[in-house]
Amino acid sequence: MRALCCILLLSLPAYAGRRAEPEPELQATAAALLGAALASGEAYAELRVLSDDIGHRISGSPQLARAVTWAEAELRADGLQVALEPVDVPVWERGLGHAEVRAPLVEPLPVLALGGSVATPEGGVEAPVLVVSSFDDLRARAGEAEGRIVVWDVPFTTYGDTVVYRRDGASEAARVGAVASLVRSVTPTSLRTPHTGMQRYAPEVPHIPAAAISTEDAARLHRWQAAGVTPRVHLELRPVDRGMGPSHNVVGEIRGRSLPEEVVVIGCHLDSWDVGQGAQDDGAGCVTVMEAAALLRALPVPPRRTVRVVLFTNEESGLQGGRTYAKVHAGERIVAALEDDTGSGTPLGFRFHTRGEAPNEGALSAWRAALGPALGLLEAVGAGHLDHGYSGADIGPLVAQGTTGFGLDHDETGYWPIHHTEADTFDKVDPLLVRRNVAAVTVLTWALAELPSLPPAAP
Amino acid sequence: MRALCCILLLSLPAYAGRRAEPEPELQATAAALLGAALASGEAYAELRVLSDDIGHRISGSPQLARAVTWAEAELRADGLQVALEPVDVPVWERGLGHAEVRAPLVEPLPVLALGGSVATPEGGVEAPVLVVSSFDDLRARAGEAEGRIVVWDVPFTTYGDTVVYRRDGASEAARVGAVASLVRSVTPTSLRTPHTGMQRYAPEVPHIPAAAISTEDAARLHRWQAAGVTPRVHLELRPVDRGMGPSHNVVGEIRGRSLPEEVVVIGCHLDSWDVGQGAQDDGAGCVTVMEAAALLRALPVPPRRTVRVVLFTNEESGLQGGRTYAKVHAGERIVAALEDDTGSGTPLGFRFHTRGEAPNEGALSAWRAALGPALGLLEAVGAGHLDHGYSGADIGPLVAQGTTGFGLDHDETGYWPIHHTEADTFDKVDPLLVRRNVAAVTVLTWALAELPSLPPAAP
Repeated sequence: MRALCCILLLSLPAYAGRRAEPEPELQATAAALLGAALASGEAYAELRVLSDDIGHRISGSPQLARAVTWAEAELRADGLQVALEPVDVPVWERGLGHAEVRAPLVEPLPVLALGGSVATPEGGVEAPVLVVSSFDDLRARAGEAEGRIVVWDVPFTTYGDTVVYRRDGASEAARVGAVASLVRSVTPTSLRTPHTGMQRYAPEVPHIPAAAISTEDAARLHRWQAAGVTPRVHLELRPVDRGMGPSHNVVGEIRGRSLPEEVVVIGCHLDSWDVGQGAQDDGAGCVTVMEAAALLRALPVPPRRTVRVVLFTNEESGLQGGRTYAKVHAGERIVAALEDDTGSGTPLGFRFHTRGEAPNEGALSAWRAALGPALGLLEAVGAGHLDHGYSGADIGPLVAQGTTGFGLDHDETGYWPIHHTEADTFDKVDPLLVRRNVAAVTVLTWALAELPSLPPAAP
Repeated sequence: MRALCCILLLSLPAYAGRRAEPEPELQATAAALLGAALASGEAYAELRVLSDDIGHRISGSPQLARAVTWAEAELRADGLQVALEPVDVPVWERGLGHAEVRAPLVEPLPVLALGGSVATPEGGVEAPVLVVSSFDDLRARAGEAEGRIVVWDVPFTTYGDTVVYRRDGASEAARVGAVASLVRSVTPTSLRTPHTGMQRYAPEVPHIPAAAISTEDAARLHRWQAAGVTPRVHLELRPVDRGMGPSHNVVGEIRGRSLPEEVVVIGCHLDSWDVGQGAQDDGAGCVTVMEAAALLRALPVPPRRTVRVVLFTNEESGLQGGRTYAKVHAGERIVAALEDDTGSGTPLGFRFHTRGEAPNEGALSAWRAALGPALGLLEAVGAGHLDHGYSGADIGPLVAQGTTGFGLDHDETGYWPIHHTEADTFDKVDPLLVRRNVAAVTVLTWALAELPSLPPAAP
């Protein structure tokens, strides 16, 4: 596949021997890159290896170290300049996780500890349950929470609105005297599937064990409570916090031909949760940006600006990869950053993200104008919109420093049901949609890296 | 709700005091029953109790015995004559089930033993895997199967076409020397979800352990094999076969007012697999036929023929309920039997089923004509078709004896993904669709029980 792409790109009319270092014809090259991306099975083939042969790769795990080595070799083989940039990451091991309904009947309760959760005492904790449906509901029933296991049965609306219960539920429950916190998994649909994910302890309250249960079990506990029954649950979690350990951001570079000090970052995160294969979160994003970089590297002349593909480490459980990258490279002119981290569904366009809380309408207009031809080309594969939105967790620290952020926007229908679960596996990934995702990233990156001038960074 | 329905039915114009025992106006009563069924939340409320408070109920379990007692009381409370008819059922207990991929990497392999599987030796069996995609594929590779764990990676087409690998896979694998058999779960979609179900051993070959794995894991093992890697799997299953034990069909009767010796059976199965809640398989079918019977019982005068609601036992793991019922009642004139056992999706109509292999076109035409007004009424809620198809497992033995069979036909989109899994839970059931299912069963049963004459039984 790589050979085919190179042939396609080498045959561009713009490079037909007119001079030693021709100025690429921007739009013709964009079209050639689009075609090459749609013809390439490379990213999908790489994703199979990452998913099946390396598997899930939580921060600090041997699998993540293997993934770093693998990615480094892949990027080198594609001709990029590669660097491994050291990052200290939290090392948390899940250990035993087990729960059971003990009353009104005895049944297993599928459970996944949340990232960073403390352990229960050995032998676990058993307590009556208090099911609540919101932070307000807990406050209203605060007097009942002492000594209970609080269950957050909050149905999915959007990820952003629902995930706050996973993130803050344990601390809010601890504040009113609960002994553990179980959150309904953050997903619109389920097959009795717990979803893990990060949670954070407020420093001023006791740290209590925190885990996710399936939507089905949260609803059942809630129905019992509504029927006047107080269920009892036994929970044993034995995670181990091993402090900090070494990891790396993997950075591959194509040095710009005329504005090398202006840098376009395209990123993903190489770590995953320790369940499933991390195939869509964020293996798919990684192979997509890797292949985009490979296609740009295969051009006869490099783009005007420097393109860096950054495979961030530790997105899931601390964001140390993104934070460290932004800190280390703070003095550089990173003019744009693009992240691909919402699965491998149909690409729809891009979310536009600038520093500060308020959407910057002026900046969006200016970038829409500058990127119009590239977005128009992507419109032919349905991926041409550019609207305000969140770019990505790993590039968030760059955006906070003034870099203009872009998030590849996907149809997320198939994403949330597998997100952070055992079901995030390679079989869910559609090979033709991977090609379309590569096309979207490649064409936008080409425009960002090749346009004679870009709109100024937001103030 | 029951009170409301009774009021509705008592106010029928047909019963407005014209005489002591009026002949019901068939179609007006059908319409009133349709309305009463669509207004009733009773079946859904019963399903909550069956699902949440009794739970799954495999043959021989205390839960099934509790379900029998519960159903008996419910039917009595609705005014039916109730009998518990003894049935001997197989008693198989799942026990420990555990599997792990051991090479090329070590990972848990979610697994569910198939019903009736023998145990592995204590400590389990570990062997290289041979993945095959059909019976033909195994025959072609028979020389490689000796000492292997055969994995059947057969993607779902229809339940009927795919389930044969679950049913016969272990014996076919044993025939060529395999030490265990793992079948890809019979489902179109999955979240790493194993589906259990019955399998049968051919008497002439060794009985080897048989289990289901998720579609994801079957596909992954297959991809490894395609990439030249021979995975190794460790499997430990410790089910226990406890021989036969006592159970019951629960039978509720409304004796016919003028043709009591002609019987219309409406059935479901009360047992389930020992995972999930058996909410759709077949709790939903049971509460549907129970509520249909209750609505018919609430009529001011009973229908012409006898209506019997039969909650069969042991459908899942031996069909002893259906077999015993047909044997014990072989001398009676069971003119029609209707089963509801394909979930609680949108009802679409009925599958028509007569004795023998070939579809009986003449019989279908005659029954379509006789039931035309009732089906026409059901067409208003989208449930009016009547076409050849399989009626139901429990009434199959009655159909083999000459009874005309009807299977409530559903949209099964949501059914197969939860079928025989931990995800067959109450939350998946739509309360309004339950009402529509009750409506379909009630109206058809009313017509079957009240029409002055019915087409003759198939020869």
